[in-house]
Amino acid sequence: MNEKNQASRRHFIRNTTLATTAALSLPSLVTSAFAAEPARKRISLQKEDIILFQGDSITDAGRKKDDANANAASALGSGYAMTAASELLYRYADKNLKVYNRGISGNKVYQLAERWQKDCLDLKPNVLSILIGVNDFWHTLVNNYKGTIDTYRNDLTALLNRTKQTLPDVKLIIGEPFAVTAIKAVDEKWYPAFNDYRTAAREIAQSFDAVFIPYQAVFDKAQQSAPGGYWTHDGVHPSLAGARLMAHAWLEAVKG
Amino acid sequence: MNEKNQASRRHFIRNTTLATTAALSLPSLVTSAFAAEPARKRISLQKEDIILFQGDSITDAGRKKDDANANAASALGSGYAMTAASELLYRYADKNLKVYNRGISGNKVYQLAERWQKDCLDLKPNVLSILIGVNDFWHTLVNNYKGTIDTYRNDLTALLNRTKQTLPDVKLIIGEPFAVTAIKAVDEKWYPAFNDYRTAAREIAQSFDAVFIPYQAVFDKAQQSAPGGYWTHDGVHPSLAGARLMAHAWLEAVKG
Repeated sequence: MNEKNQASRRHFIRNTTLATTAALSLPSLVTSAFAAEPARKRISLQKEDIILFQGDSITDAGRKKDDANANAASALGSGYAMTAASELLYRYADKNLKVYNRGISGNKVYQLAERWQKDCLDLKPNVLSILIGVNDFWHTLVNNYKGTIDTYRNDLTALLNRTKQTLPDVKLIIGEPFAVTAIKAVDEKWYPAFNDYRTAAREIAQSFDAVFIPYQAVFDKAQQSAPGGYWTHDGVHPSLAGARLMAHAWLEAVKG
Repeated sequence: MNEKNQASRRHFIRNTTLATTAALSLPSLVTSAFAAEPARKRISLQKEDIILFQGDSITDAGRKKDDANANAASALGSGYAMTAASELLYRYADKNLKVYNRGISGNKVYQLAERWQKDCLDLKPNVLSILIGVNDFWHTLVNNYKGTIDTYRNDLTALLNRTKQTLPDVKLIIGEPFAVTAIKAVDEKWYPAFNDYRTAAREIAQSFDAVFIPYQAVFDKAQQSAPGGYWTHDGVHPSLAGARLMAHAWLEAVKG
């Protein structure tokens, strides 16, 4: 175990023994999760902007796949993308935004790439939010998936390079893959390996000048208010409370 | 046309010609909608509180009827009840709230009464939110429904008396029936008659010491930011943006 992995291991242990006595409000906890982000920035939303949420089941959240419309509740699912969208459409009503969700359950990066033309480039988003990576790791444990951390890093970098070639002005938001430790699916077999995916997402966000959403810190800090099982039922998929928590963090990435 | 009806008529005309130049933010517009409420109050939420949303299609919003669980996104639908619930569960995470939605599309007051034992009293809510009335009027225009304003007033009063008998400590929230004029279903045939349902809901709320949510003013004022068709597709059912607008107004009724 090298020094970095020892630190990750300590991170795991600390998460599972968090005190629940702090008195910070949830909004303050969400804001504090960004404290570790060195160059915090917000994307300025413009009139008529098209915002696209991409990712796996956490983004998908049961959306109606045959509804291609922007801004429709059922087309946006019941997760963080929908609840962030509802707030975007409310708060920035004068901007006439169009919000799409094209997350698909089970996806890893290579599966985003397979459908990227239709489910991203053709939609011509002005703001593109991607949350991907938990399956790239998790499926190595449960689905015999052979991809490694290098696969994840290389595939995501290639996807973003391709995106920037077609949409040079797109503003990027990269979400950190996260897991809530000691809740069902997420046991110590995840650590320290899973932490490398979090680090890779952060580093790739930085290299593409994307806004990074530190979801791991968000979920860690939220446990000062309610236990992990309140925010996610299986350690991976957020509850409605967890989805709203993520949306609040996501909304920190944009401004009017 | 009596004096009251003339005022209502003027209200209709004013709503349909609202200027769209004001610079107030949406949160400020929502707050300003409460300016006309003489004795504004908020319900203090307690740990383990059970919160029940009741009403018609606006509350129902496509909820999964076979999911009786509290706090589940699909069981809460995709309307204001769900998006208010998501914020309640986030903001008051330390209270371990249980939120239910039992709205049913098409309902008028007498139909709430028919299922009140199972869909309200048996759930023993600490906070009960009711939004009912648009069908009590609308169906007189389109469904040959014979109920009158007196039916509405008497039925709703009886329902609340029955509720208070079984649940004397329940805290009540009454939403104002609303319509967005000049959008599809809502034409001048609605006025001034529909306004009497709004007035009745307000007076009943007052007589039961309920918190009243002035949704009509909320939707009127929101049109300073985006046109009526942005907030509702047919004048009656809110869009996702409209649902979030309602949720923000609803959240003004409670505090931690």
